[in-house]
Amino acid sequence: MYEGVVQDLIDELGRLPGVGPKGAQRIAFHLLTADPEDITRLAEALLQIREKISFCEVCGNVAEAQRCRICLDERRDPGVICVVEQSQDVAAIERTREFRGRYHVLGGAINPIGGVGPEDLRLRELVARLADGAVGEVIIATDPDLEGEATATYLTRLLAPYEEVMVSRLASGLPVGGDLEYADEVTLGRAFEGRRQVSGQTPSPATR
Amino acid sequence: MYEGVVQDLIDELGRLPGVGPKGAQRIAFHLLTADPEDITRLAEALLQIREKISFCEVCGNVAEAQRCRICLDERRDPGVICVVEQSQDVAAIERTREFRGRYHVLGGAINPIGGVGPEDLRLRELVARLADGAVGEVIIATDPDLEGEATATYLTRLLAPYEEVMVSRLASGLPVGGDLEYADEVTLGRAFEGRRQVSGQTPSPATR
Repeated sequence: MYEGVVQDLIDELGRLPGVGPKGAQRIAFHLLTADPEDITRLAEALLQIREKISFCEVCGNVAEAQRCRICLDERRDPGVICVVEQSQDVAAIERTREFRGRYHVLGGAINPIGGVGPEDLRLRELVARLADGAVGEVIIATDPDLEGEATATYLTRLLAPYEEVMVSRLASGLPVGGDLEYADEVTLGRAFEGRRQVSGQTPSPATR
Repeated sequence: MYEGVVQDLIDELGRLPGVGPKGAQRIAFHLLTADPEDITRLAEALLQIREKISFCEVCGNVAEAQRCRICLDERRDPGVICVVEQSQDVAAIERTREFRGRYHVLGGAINPIGGVGPEDLRLRELVARLADGAVGEVIIATDPDLEGEATATYLTRLLAPYEEVMVSRLASGLPVGGDLEYADEVTLGRAFEGRRQVSGQTPSPATR
């Protein structure tokens, strides 16, 4: 439809996730009239990522060196490992500023339909990190979906022999700012299950 | 949030139109695990567009040479000029395969709030194309929005002195496959105004 070079760019942009043919066209025409320096910077950022980025040999997070910034940061507690599916999850948790431990990126979640089994995840590397006894807690922070739950269950069994390691799972419940009326049944069920006492007497097990 | 190079790429991608921070992150992580050749192709397409693309000296469409493919195509009727706002509109009309004439790309539409006046559009170049008397029809195909209509009105007045040139405007009405119930009032009003007789007698002006 367009002159060769423009069409090439539209085709290449259209292959990116979340960019459809219309979006690719819009971006291409934006770039046609953009500052040439902006285009150069984008092209260079692309080539840099190919050359400079690898994965941390310890936790599997994206890294510019052999180890990622978090594994190199001495102030981060090496006694707590938060296990996530992918690097993006590390960034999401870092944004909360709640967690000061280290991470372990599995590289996905167990998904039999998608052909991802436990052997495709970085589980051996996780177990190796527990060998020296320095880790006191593993927080399982896989996604609260089918694959993430299956992975969490698998992990729980895998880590059960390490009796000195506390294994926990992120809480499920109503999202903050959400609307109880529109919560799905499973989330609402989980919110009941995980309810926290706020005052009064703890009921005896018989009356619960 | 991320290692330098990854964050650079996310920042650059996030500047593209229609790509938000989440989309930029998604694209960046897709590229992290993508085939290095795909990344190179995308980076090269970007650099090529900066080097090779200019605008057709006749019609203002994007072009790899001094003239665009359509202006160079001898089979296209030089007697009909379709006036559009931007190159993307040329591509949209080409997809219909209904039009075999030439184009004129204005480079925008009159928009006093956005600071775009008639002097910012390629109007002089359009008038110059009418000088030799070879053009018999000008089809105004600006957008059916406020700015496009203002531009169409301006063009109509500008071209009125060329009495031998028929000036037309694309039809407004219900979009094909649309739903009358959900059409906005202006569109429905236009559809009434532009109604076409399908059978029976033409009413005399007195009974209309």
